[in-house]
Amino acid sequence: MNAVDVIRTKRDRGVLDDTHIDWVIDAYTGGLVAEEQMAALLMAIYFNGLTPRELARWTTAMIASGVRMDFTDLPRATTDKHSTGGVGDKITLPLTPTVAACGAAVPQLSGRGLGHTGGTLDKLESIRGWRASITPDEMHAQLRDIGAAICAAGDGLAPADRLLYALRDVTATVESIPLIASSIMSKKIAEGTSALVLDVKVGTGAFMKDVAAARELAATMVELGAAHGVKTVALLTEMNTPLGRTVGNALEVAESVDVLAGGGPSDVVELTVTLAREMLQACGMGGGKDPADALRDGSAMDVWRQMIGAQGGDPDAPLPRSAHTHVVVAPSSGRLVRLDALAVGVASWRLGAGRARKEDSVSFGAGIEMHAKPGDVVRAGEPLLSLHTDDELRFAAALESLDGGYVIEPADAPFQAAPQVIDRVGT
Amino acid sequence: MNAVDVIRTKRDRGVLDDTHIDWVIDAYTGGLVAEEQMAALLMAIYFNGLTPRELARWTTAMIASGVRMDFTDLPRATTDKHSTGGVGDKITLPLTPTVAACGAAVPQLSGRGLGHTGGTLDKLESIRGWRASITPDEMHAQLRDIGAAICAAGDGLAPADRLLYALRDVTATVESIPLIASSIMSKKIAEGTSALVLDVKVGTGAFMKDVAAARELAATMVELGAAHGVKTVALLTEMNTPLGRTVGNALEVAESVDVLAGGGPSDVVELTVTLAREMLQACGMGGGKDPADALRDGSAMDVWRQMIGAQGGDPDAPLPRSAHTHVVVAPSSGRLVRLDALAVGVASWRLGAGRARKEDSVSFGAGIEMHAKPGDVVRAGEPLLSLHTDDELRFAAALESLDGGYVIEPADAPFQAAPQVIDRVGT
Repeated sequence: MNAVDVIRTKRDRGVLDDTHIDWVIDAYTGGLVAEEQMAALLMAIYFNGLTPRELARWTTAMIASGVRMDFTDLPRATTDKHSTGGVGDKITLPLTPTVAACGAAVPQLSGRGLGHTGGTLDKLESIRGWRASITPDEMHAQLRDIGAAICAAGDGLAPADRLLYALRDVTATVESIPLIASSIMSKKIAEGTSALVLDVKVGTGAFMKDVAAARELAATMVELGAAHGVKTVALLTEMNTPLGRTVGNALEVAESVDVLAGGGPSDVVELTVTLAREMLQACGMGGGKDPADALRDGSAMDVWRQMIGAQGGDPDAPLPRSAHTHVVVAPSSGRLVRLDALAVGVASWRLGAGRARKEDSVSFGAGIEMHAKPGDVVRAGEPLLSLHTDDELRFAAALESLDGGYVIEPADAPFQAAPQVIDRVGT
Repeated sequence: MNAVDVIRTKRDRGVLDDTHIDWVIDAYTGGLVAEEQMAALLMAIYFNGLTPRELARWTTAMIASGVRMDFTDLPRATTDKHSTGGVGDKITLPLTPTVAACGAAVPQLSGRGLGHTGGTLDKLESIRGWRASITPDEMHAQLRDIGAAICAAGDGLAPADRLLYALRDVTATVESIPLIASSIMSKKIAEGTSALVLDVKVGTGAFMKDVAAARELAATMVELGAAHGVKTVALLTEMNTPLGRTVGNALEVAESVDVLAGGGPSDVVELTVTLAREMLQACGMGGGKDPADALRDGSAMDVWRQMIGAQGGDPDAPLPRSAHTHVVVAPSSGRLVRLDALAVGVASWRLGAGRARKEDSVSFGAGIEMHAKPGDVVRAGEPLLSLHTDDELRFAAALESLDGGYVIEPADAPFQAAPQVIDRVGT
């Protein structure tokens, strides 16, 4: 087998057979195919794509590069969710304990943030004592006893993906639907869940800016899940506006706890319940306890406290707060018709909530509170946004990214709220 | 400046500006842009090409990665030839002294063979004592005194090309017209010639299999030469049949000496004279001594002997011969209508005349003698080809590659000889 032949085949729009795919992923993971060869292959895939059959095998090979976890011996059905990343998207935090409170087990392996969309692990690490790394045995026990674990993926899970992800980042081969789909699905399938709900974000603050591309990605991932025996459905959801009222780490944890306490912003509650119902449906528990009830009766909150405690966290500890706050007031009276997700996401990132490079640390207290959301009537001079940071020098850059990011129109102008769920893919 | 931005621009069909091109070539040569990043950029160029303006700058940057030689102080005009590589293509050997005998200086930097087309330096190294490496000062003196030097390019000449060439080889990005053109032209322009004739081979034994692609490559290189002040013309010449009667190293040297002695196969003589006239025309010496006369009157042979001697070679030493010979006889009587260049080239390579990897050595005596060429009438049982090798075990593989490589038809069937020059590009 020869890497040049594999690259040339894909470059010339040929179809890679199973042995080529298995070999190239295995040899690359083992260091026998050089980074420059895989880079050339990734760019050829960027241009010429992968057939559904090639993509399924490519994903299988990525999974086979490491261990595949197995939770089939649990007394609970497993189900999980993956979001392609949005601004203010803290849904994993209230969702995981809510679904567990309805009787399923959620083996949620999460990541850290890079760029303007935050990372679930970064958010949870703002809770005193909480640790992202647990052993497979600890995870197993936690799923058995509590039904919920949110933690970092171990090194043994789809190591090919870790290498490919880093390589795509430096070679401008990130924006390829088969490469995105195989990256997400190899990790989620290796994680051992029996059912999966994908939240594919669409809009300015999302990776996918248009519905057609998002639908293609969703369909590709649903098909990949089915090919690997994981019941998968996808929702396309709106990401032109941030989710909820907060963007940041500790700020989003606080909002999640509000939701678990039966309150919180309506869009966060609504999406949590919608996704929870899909997750339960997908693992065959659609007829049981309703997630809205789990939020109302305190059972989701009970699971949250156990889940945080099991990983060393103190759910009652005060959350970190930033030292400095700057309030942006409404420049005129009227109706807020737009609050751009990308602008708010970048502003929050610049305030310190996110990281520019993998090795950077995040500020737990930094971020943005939104005092109004699109559709709300505002009055000139009243607070629109509160910006929080540990470093006052960061305000200028954050404000710059907010420039043009919100639009106020006359209150009597027609306004149509965007629906939260744009489409659903899967059966 | 950022490699990912440069890759993404080309990936998305954008145009790279001068500063991007200068930076990426310079940073790559200096090790600041990683191999995997350049590999991704090369594959993006493979798919999306380079505009003429981008390509001119890309080539300029490759030249600027090293030194550009300067022979403007010589009393002779400089002119050179480059062939894209063919089977039995020993033309550089008789051509260089012939042009020098007509009064021009030929600074011919050549390479070694890889694959089924032989390398000029490999051929000359079959002459006892001859050395390919000379210093720039030695080259300068040789051009001044003799008018001819065939030698290896020093490490200082277009080092970016050496790196890119090796990278393209392992990443399936060889077959890209702008990348081929910039590779050839950066070396030839850096070599300091004032005029250049390109022999673009077309046919089964050539890199370019069809005329349209060859014409595009030729036009691209002619334009690049003009953009860098080097008067450049290109001939498209036939390469479905090997040139001359021999393929190999010492075998081709012997044939070249025959030509320089006023004999030799007519196709080799004809192409030598055609290219020599073009080279002299291109450097403004078209009205002087005719190359056919230089071959006839012994002056080309005199230059050859001086040139070989100046680089330590003994022009009178016997040439190496291989230990084993196998004769292929004509299986039937009739007219030989086809003798495939690729089949003969691969057979010669398998006999030991070429190398599979850069670090391999070649056998000087190995190769093939052709006792008949297309158009010749042959009789069943008479010798068609003589195969020479140092290792008898190699005959089987060589014969396998010759299978189907020659066709004999009834002697009275119509036969049309292919013209040697297919087209000419440039003014």
